[in-house]
Amino acid sequence: ISLAGGLPDSRLLPADEYAECVAAVLKREGGAALQYRPMYEPLRAWVADYMRARGVDCTPEQVFITNGNQQGLSILSRLFIEPGQPAVTEAFTFTGVGQVTVGRGAQVIGVPVDYETGVDLSALEEALRQKPRMAVIIPSYQNPLGVTIPAAHRQQIAALAARYHVPLVEDDPYSALSFDGQTPPPIKAYDEAGWVFYLGSFSKMLAPGLRLGWMVAPSALSSRLITLRESFDLETSALTQRSVFEFLDRGLLPPHLARLNAANAERCAAMLGALEEHFTGLATWTRPTGGLFVWMEMNDPSVDAFAALDRAIEQERVAFVPGGAFSVTGGHQHTIRLNFSAVEPDTIREGVARLKRILLG
Amino acid sequence: ISLAGGLPDSRLLPADEYAECVAAVLKREGGAALQYRPMYEPLRAWVADYMRARGVDCTPEQVFITNGNQQGLSILSRLFIEPGQPAVTEAFTFTGVGQVTVGRGAQVIGVPVDYETGVDLSALEEALRQKPRMAVIIPSYQNPLGVTIPAAHRQQIAALAARYHVPLVEDDPYSALSFDGQTPPPIKAYDEAGWVFYLGSFSKMLAPGLRLGWMVAPSALSSRLITLRESFDLETSALTQRSVFEFLDRGLLPPHLARLNAANAERCAAMLGALEEHFTGLATWTRPTGGLFVWMEMNDPSVDAFAALDRAIEQERVAFVPGGAFSVTGGHQHTIRLNFSAVEPDTIREGVARLKRILLG
Repeated sequence: ISLAGGLPDSRLLPADEYAECVAAVLKREGGAALQYRPMYEPLRAWVADYMRARGVDCTPEQVFITNGNQQGLSILSRLFIEPGQPAVTEAFTFTGVGQVTVGRGAQVIGVPVDYETGVDLSALEEALRQKPRMAVIIPSYQNPLGVTIPAAHRQQIAALAARYHVPLVEDDPYSALSFDGQTPPPIKAYDEAGWVFYLGSFSKMLAPGLRLGWMVAPSALSSRLITLRESFDLETSALTQRSVFEFLDRGLLPPHLARLNAANAERCAAMLGALEEHFTGLATWTRPTGGLFVWMEMNDPSVDAFAALDRAIEQERVAFVPGGAFSVTGGHQHTIRLNFSAVEPDTIREGVARLKRILLG
Repeated sequence: ISLAGGLPDSRLLPADEYAECVAAVLKREGGAALQYRPMYEPLRAWVADYMRARGVDCTPEQVFITNGNQQGLSILSRLFIEPGQPAVTEAFTFTGVGQVTVGRGAQVIGVPVDYETGVDLSALEEALRQKPRMAVIIPSYQNPLGVTIPAAHRQQIAALAARYHVPLVEDDPYSALSFDGQTPPPIKAYDEAGWVFYLGSFSKMLAPGLRLGWMVAPSALSSRLITLRESFDLETSALTQRSVFEFLDRGLLPPHLARLNAANAERCAAMLGALEEHFTGLATWTRPTGGLFVWMEMNDPSVDAFAALDRAIEQERVAFVPGGAFSVTGGHQHTIRLNFSAVEPDTIREGVARLKRILLG
């Protein structure tokens, strides 16, 4: 039983519909869809509309197509960070953020995070005062915490980035994975001064194996972004851009998201119920309203999730990720990231029961 | 009339066959083909077989899947080059090579190139003596020159890399585009000491818009390569890897290459014939036996191809790339790169006739 991944359930990915979209594109455009091509304008326009519907005032010219958010992070870290310079991230963050900050030689300042409202605003301000070259925040259904920053805080975060002149990278792959449709507007929606760089992705909302995402950035930077991107890998697949646009243009995204989020909501509820049953009084955990992850912190700080993992796999055949793996300062060995999207509710319940035997056996 | 591109003719790309391959993969594997996945082992095994058939002794474990050769170049330049260090390239080279050498802050040493046998061996040895961090050579149907390095020279190049302990990047996207099937073995085939990093690509042999290529590197480096690659953009599309393998496994590559190369050979012959007709005594040019490009050098060094380009587009509606754009030292404004793969023979003949009016009118 794997509660370790960060994957959607493969059985919920729209394979048949996507196959029809690829076929339609290749039939209509022929070899031209397999050629070197500039960014696909209808896709940029679709993304601009989508972002405007979420409250972000942007034009298609500001939409820059990527191979997913890791590429966006990598491009921006090359644009902003030189080795030895400070960068800001959440105290617990996706390992790929570490690869473009620590991995780029930055001195990383980790900002403490509240389990209900996300990044601590006064700690963030303190960190931004140190003139970091870049800050990365995952605002919705955060990886690894599952926490969502409320709208009022987002507005303040945008204002802080502007006040301290720090490029703020909003890494937002999970926002479409809302159980109740109540994801707050992006931080970018409150960005009047242009310090927020928004990263969106089709990986979680459509399919990871397509490798497609976007950045919303000031148009003034677009030639620098294109040059930098070309040096990475020239461009994003013309066929993928067209096929995904076909999927979107056929209106297939809303029903896909409805199916996916209904399943994820059920699985998340199963996990929260099982935690309630087995860990009440022994741990605290986050209560996500979307996304893929629940975060658990054991009340007993001597519990070592790293040590428990080997036993869990061998003795109980259940896997998870020790939360310390996401900590920018190390430690926190008594925390755990649990994924609820990849397996069915009964399996989740069984997995959590086994987890208790391992952690508190 | 564009003789400027570096593209195959879109009408020659196998759109229908590829559509069938995508459909077959999605039908067989369903959503699993749209998931995050490690490198696709059957594709690595196919590439290893293909490389072995070309004389390179390698295992699937040495094959590292990329999004095309620009990504391979970018990964290797990050592995080997720090700003300010020397790097070696051919004196005329693909602009993407500049992006990962000059663009990485390297001090570039350009090695002179012979129009019949490619990179000059004694100049290369002189350059390698300066302990560059990396050297990049395009061995077959070179971009921009169209020149192919003979087998005996390749063997010596591999030996020089080993003698001077310089990582040699063999950027080889064009080798399958042979008119006569006589492309020499890769430099990597002569690499006994493990200093050659081979980059191969499906962009020119199958379709650019798929963004798929590979690297053959020592297995000892594979964990470093994977970490570095993950920091770029996690991984290559699972669907693309499977669909291209399906195309290969169905035996569709040889007939596609036969069609493509027959058309390209006819177009190249048309271009060489037209150059003979219009430029004899006025210029010298290379005589490619494959690939996409012919290189022309005017006898009169005062001809300025950069200045001529604007006139050519406005007055004669013909485009080309001034050769100086590929020179690592600038200058060479009396040279021109001509592409013969994108348009039909009659159009090529007309284009060359117009070119003469512009350059010598």
